[in-house]
Amino acid sequence: MKEIVIKSLKDRGVKIKDIAKIAYDLQVPYNPDLTLDECIISVEKVFEKREVQYTILTGIALDKLTEDGVVEEPLSSIIETDEPLYGIDESLAMTIANIYGTIGITSFGYLDKNKVGIMEELDSSKDNVNTFLDDIVAGIASAASARLAHHHRNQEQADIS
Amino acid sequence: MKEIVIKSLKDRGVKIKDIAKIAYDLQVPYNPDLTLDECIISVEKVFEKREVQYTILTGIALDKLTEDGVVEEPLSSIIETDEPLYGIDESLAMTIANIYGTIGITSFGYLDKNKVGIMEELDSSKDNVNTFLDDIVAGIASAASARLAHHHRNQEQADIS
Amino acid sequence: MKEIVIKSLKDRGVKIKDIAKIAYDLQVPYNPDLTLDECIISVEKVFEKREVQYTILTGIALDKLTEDGVVEEPLSSIIETDEPLYGIDESLAMTIANIYGTIGITSFGYLDKNKVGIMEELDSSKDNVNTFLDDIVAGIASAASARLAHHHRNQEQADIS
Amino acid sequence: MKEIVIKSLKDRGVKIKDIAKIAYDLQVPYNPDLTLDECIISVEKVFEKREVQYTILTGIALDKLTEDGVVEEPLSSIIETDEPLYGIDESLAMTIANIYGTIGITSFGYLDKNKVGIMEELDSSKDNVNTFLDDIVAGIASAASARLAHHHRNQEQADIS
Repeated sequence: MKEIVIKSLKDRGVKIKDIAKIAYDLQVPYNPDLTLDECIISVEKVFEKREVQYTILTGIALDKLTEDGVVEEPLSSIIETDEPLYGIDESLAMTIANIYGTIGITSFGYLDKNKVGIMEELDSSKDNVNTFLDDIVAGIASAASARLAHHHRNQEQADIS
Repeated sequence: MKEIVIKSLKDRGVKIKDIAKIAYDLQVPYNPDLTLDECIISVEKVFEKREVQYTILTGIALDKLTEDGVVEEPLSSIIETDEPLYGIDESLAMTIANIYGTIGITSFGYLDKNKVGIMEELDSSKDNVNTFLDDIVAGIASAASARLAHHHRNQEQADIS
Repeated sequence: MKEIVIKSLKDRGVKIKDIAKIAYDLQVPYNPDLTLDECIISVEKVFEKREVQYTILTGIALDKLTEDGVVEEPLSSIIETDEPLYGIDESLAMTIANIYGTIGITSFGYLDKNKVGIMEELDSSKDNVNTFLDDIVAGIASAASARLAHHHRNQEQADIS
Repeated sequence: MKEIVIKSLKDRGVKIKDIAKIAYDLQVPYNPDLTLDECIISVEKVFEKREVQYTILTGIALDKLTEDGVVEEPLSSIIETDEPLYGIDESLAMTIANIYGTIGITSFGYLDKNKVGIMEELDSSKDNVNTFLDDIVAGIASAASARLAHHHRNQEQADIS
């Protein structure tokens, strides 16, 4: 299942490294020794959670079905234009952001207002509907960053004792 | 928009009265004077919230698109069989249950384990995919019941003072 | 930290086995081969999560400080009488219930309406304020049960393939 | 109860106008005609919700009891130093941010990383423990801003039709 999910993202133009870069930017201020490779491993770990896999597949399906013109109105236009008060895309993505605790949610809120890297590309794409996908990317990056924060803190506390 | 949402539910076999009955059963132990008419008004109030409208339209769309065979595998089978760990249907419905505070969530959890009335019919339907719809009904009934709980408590406190 | 948390619960009358019994009752209908020992291990795993530890310590502190009479009015009376619309106790406990995904929340909602075992004892205690504690117990049992559900499902899928 | 809550905040150095200013900054990019008076009214509306009132009283109580030295270790030090992975302060405040839908949560996440106005003052205070209070202020401002966003959108749609 993990491989299917990674392929689904790749087919929509999102590579693991793109997400790892966002997680890196979120976490490096608190951990200057952090490497991109550690972020890639952390993103891979997030992909192993079943609830994450299901959420990614559902969000991408809604983007693609809207693109294919099979979603009825008025929902179709709401998703296509990313209506500011729609909120379902954020709700879904926050279930991913939340898997390593509350700090994932605050990172998610920050990314939602400051779209960076691949998120910016997805958001400005003219060819595809990425209403769910850009939030999903933010959710995965936020969870991966939260996971790194917990590990870093455990390391610090082990060093003290 | 509210009328579109009510019609969408009716087209899937769910009437306002069906949901109001579930809200009544949830709330009557705490308020013996409660009437079904008050529950119908409370359900109508829940339908006025934009976030609720969007959630209902999205959930029904996912059920129908799965029924129509346009959702790709493996997601299609996951939704069709209501895979126990899927969780997206409950997550979406809980955003409805939550609009009048936490007590809506506990009612939702209770209904999820004790499917009653129209929820039982939807759950056992052979002709339709109702994976999202039965949770949405539970979410609306829970929110309507939470709203009545808040009003009843306000009334009690006004009577004391 | 894990040991401090387990001791805090024990000092308030809650043993790991009491919580494991509730998790067992939640999960055994779906997995008839389940043993109480597996439930004890699952509860122990829940205790390892930092967010869970912090939530337990905070909830118990609020119960004890209310008991000690150092919480100001009107909050003191609200916590002492477990005012039905207070909701903070459930909100805190749901962050525990949620750590292994949405199904933990539905179990929590169910337990909140059907207090069993140690929860019933805590709820009817005359000597102690247990407003937060009974919800925390429900949250831990729900998370432990959700964890078992995920493992059981993984096992089933491994057996098929 | 609303008056008690407003007084509690004032006693801790937070005036309605301070919170309204943060809500204004969040919302004015989307609505250039917005006035500070409208933000003050919106903050007042947020204070009318019972769940909000209870959350504010609980958060302020935890700050004050920690200040007074009656909270046991290790929780006391965790709250006093605002341990980065504590998370209970954010969890509580997000129940406020969430009352007008998901967009409140993304604003909250943004404010949590970009402390402004009164939040910055609270965060850098040497004399008081404000671990819960600064998040509560962010939660109220986020909810007030989300409420304004919904009203503004309703107005736009009414103007079109």
